[in-house]
Amino acid sequence: MSNKEIPYKIYLEENEMPDSWYNVRADMKKKPAPLLNPATLEPLKAEELEPIFCKELVKQELNETDAYIPIPQEIKDFYKMYRPSPLVRAYCLEKKLGTPAKIYYKFEGNNTSGSHKLNSAIAQAYYAKQQGLKGVTTETGAGQWGTALSMACAYFDLDCKVYMVKVSYEQKPFRREVMRTYGASVTPSPSTTTEVGKKILEEHPGTTGSLGCAISEAVETATKHEGYRYVLGSVLNQVLLHQSVIGLESKIAMDKYGIKPDIIIGCAGGGSNLGGLISPFMGEKLRGEADYHFIAVEPASCPSLTRGKYVYDFCDTGKVCPMAKMYTLGSGFIPSANHAGGLRYHGMSSIVSELYDQGLIEARSVEQTSVFEAAEQFARVEGILPAPESSHAIRVAIDEALKCKETGEEKTILFGLTGTGYFDMVAYEKYNNGEMSDYIPTDKDLEAGFAGLPKQPE
Amino acid sequence: MSNKEIPYKIYLEENEMPDSWYNVRADMKKKPAPLLNPATLEPLKAEELEPIFCKELVKQELNETDAYIPIPQEIKDFYKMYRPSPLVRAYCLEKKLGTPAKIYYKFEGNNTSGSHKLNSAIAQAYYAKQQGLKGVTTETGAGQWGTALSMACAYFDLDCKVYMVKVSYEQKPFRREVMRTYGASVTPSPSTTTEVGKKILEEHPGTTGSLGCAISEAVETATKHEGYRYVLGSVLNQVLLHQSVIGLESKIAMDKYGIKPDIIIGCAGGGSNLGGLISPFMGEKLRGEADYHFIAVEPASCPSLTRGKYVYDFCDTGKVCPMAKMYTLGSGFIPSANHAGGLRYHGMSSIVSELYDQGLIEARSVEQTSVFEAAEQFARVEGILPAPESSHAIRVAIDEALKCKETGEEKTILFGLTGTGYFDMVAYEKYNNGEMSDYIPTDKDLEAGFAGLPKQPE
Repeated sequence: MSNKEIPYKIYLEENEMPDSWYNVRADMKKKPAPLLNPATLEPLKAEELEPIFCKELVKQELNETDAYIPIPQEIKDFYKMYRPSPLVRAYCLEKKLGTPAKIYYKFEGNNTSGSHKLNSAIAQAYYAKQQGLKGVTTETGAGQWGTALSMACAYFDLDCKVYMVKVSYEQKPFRREVMRTYGASVTPSPSTTTEVGKKILEEHPGTTGSLGCAISEAVETATKHEGYRYVLGSVLNQVLLHQSVIGLESKIAMDKYGIKPDIIIGCAGGGSNLGGLISPFMGEKLRGEADYHFIAVEPASCPSLTRGKYVYDFCDTGKVCPMAKMYTLGSGFIPSANHAGGLRYHGMSSIVSELYDQGLIEARSVEQTSVFEAAEQFARVEGILPAPESSHAIRVAIDEALKCKETGEEKTILFGLTGTGYFDMVAYEKYNNGEMSDYIPTDKDLEAGFAGLPKQPE
Repeated sequence: MSNKEIPYKIYLEENEMPDSWYNVRADMKKKPAPLLNPATLEPLKAEELEPIFCKELVKQELNETDAYIPIPQEIKDFYKMYRPSPLVRAYCLEKKLGTPAKIYYKFEGNNTSGSHKLNSAIAQAYYAKQQGLKGVTTETGAGQWGTALSMACAYFDLDCKVYMVKVSYEQKPFRREVMRTYGASVTPSPSTTTEVGKKILEEHPGTTGSLGCAISEAVETATKHEGYRYVLGSVLNQVLLHQSVIGLESKIAMDKYGIKPDIIIGCAGGGSNLGGLISPFMGEKLRGEADYHFIAVEPASCPSLTRGKYVYDFCDTGKVCPMAKMYTLGSGFIPSANHAGGLRYHGMSSIVSELYDQGLIEARSVEQTSVFEAAEQFARVEGILPAPESSHAIRVAIDEALKCKETGEEKTILFGLTGTGYFDMVAYEKYNNGEMSDYIPTDKDLEAGFAGLPKQPE
């Protein structure tokens, strides 16, 4: 099929949308390492997880065998409000770069949460509702996940308690107001509403918070309140499962037009977008049916894949969560203060970590000024102001397209455009004013994080 | 065709998108009144308008006879990046309201400018580029138009000078940064860069600016700089022409599914969205082929249609622009300080004014707390956080749907959802905190505005 016949945007029809999520673990010979009980260092059983997570989500978390898990009708109906997301052919970017490469991106920003996070938020809210719960608790950093969850909870009439990293709560009042408009209660973290929050405030009186700390508070609140469970927007297997809808839609759209990507690129913080985007393609690779070059892009200032260790670590600062095996910088690691965007979690999803460890994914780290350069270039020709997180993928997509320009190769590049940057204008302002700087952690910086790693299981 | 077969979102294929804009004036027996030279009170000729506006746009401004004006290929290509916009069936809102009415909305917010304004911005930038100009100047209030124009200028590599109403410049730094990211220069108005700005600053030292004043500055700058022209985001005939793409796409989508709207609702500030949305339907009505109930919704605090006078008035504070016949509150009218959203222009497009004067459109004014109530209700079930402007239309759409609930009528309602509220969180915060108030201008308030009306032509 010639280029001419491929539209700028490919939208699937409703009846072409996926009916099931795809569980990549089913096709992995070596499975990701299980979650451990931090006290016993033994793999956690369903009944140990159920006080924290919804029952059905625990099942999904532990399910390593079913490749396809049907999407309940209620979730499919919600998906129809903002999905299918468009698969866009970046004709204007290609022209601007003068590259023979064909660039596609799956754009997940056309919803009020502004990102792909809604794909899992609605699923988690649905199962909480099904279980007859009153509400859910969570943490949010930049606010995309909190917004997504607020929207999902409003739809199912569930209470939603969000712990927002204090620095974001103060610097991003607009995100906070979006959540409040959807009826969520938003508490700056660390707070005095939890024991772990109080303890952290005592030890670090001036702290502006961290994601790891907000997680601890949200978990504590969920376990202490009757009828509440904790939900998480990334890292977990269940989240990557729900996010597979990104990759599935992409693949259906590409198959429809006979397009086969050579390179698939995603930004990687906790791994939810990357894992979701690549999963059906990775499935083909694992089954030996096709080959793709996968690239995970992370910030040089928070380089869990490229410079982290593949070990068991705490998922949160308060160490109240299960332990996960992952590429990690240590649960105490916090990116330097000049780090502007998200992608600041110290670890990486167990699935992505294991796939990376098996050599199935390449990882690259990029510096933030070059990321914003790519963001601006993209915005000006493609008309979408991207989220700083998504712009990590744009950076590498442009780099790869420019390589094609040099070599003359007509590679097909697919990247995930996870969201929009409308609530990130403070960072853009810094960039516009020439005040943005880069920081690559020294080995010594990293060692401080690694020093906090827990005792490993035998 | 039964409801079941109508998807949540109807997207046209690229080849179904309109090839021409529709010029409703061609089907109006009594045409809108012409623009006048404020000095002579004579209708302006093309050559008098060309120092201000691009040549091709002047032609479009004065064209009363051609019903269809072809959309140039370059503009069609740009449209394909963010259009067709979805026509959404508001299944969830219907269910929530328990109404037998069928509610549809045309959603124009899925682009970085966040509104329909981009439809005309790209056209105006294109014609400026065609004419070999260096750049364009404009004013912006809330910032949607300025953002749209910045995006369009970045695409065609044109310089873009935006005068932003000072109060918005200061209160909406994020909008300003979006414009800067697209390479525009943004100046708070009134400024000392123009004679009219200096004069206004002298007379009103503490002023936070107004749209009318920013228009004057932008016009002065365009006429004083070689290779620049002024462009405007609403009110003008040319803008309503470009915005007809909204209505044309809506009509094609509805025709495809055999849907015929009974009521068509749009918010109305300068009239660009309303005029664009209703135009092809109005054409049918004017030609006697079909009937529709059109409703223009305006803020009670800026009620140009419902309480204004239909006379010739100045379009700007500095009185440097042509005079237009329109429903107006007087060019000196400024909504009370508690007015939160846009839709604050003192006048209304000549086309909409004339159609309204002929009794072809109903006008309603609504108070802002009830508008935000509707906005919140809509956001929670339909998942989109609407712009305050768009929410005026939502308010009346909900009111009409609730009437249907009482009467049992299964009316089909179409409204324009012009944009998203992501940059309006200050207003939402006020609403969330219960601090939003209403103000309906007294007759005395209005008389002050009317006192500034110019001498009318014979």
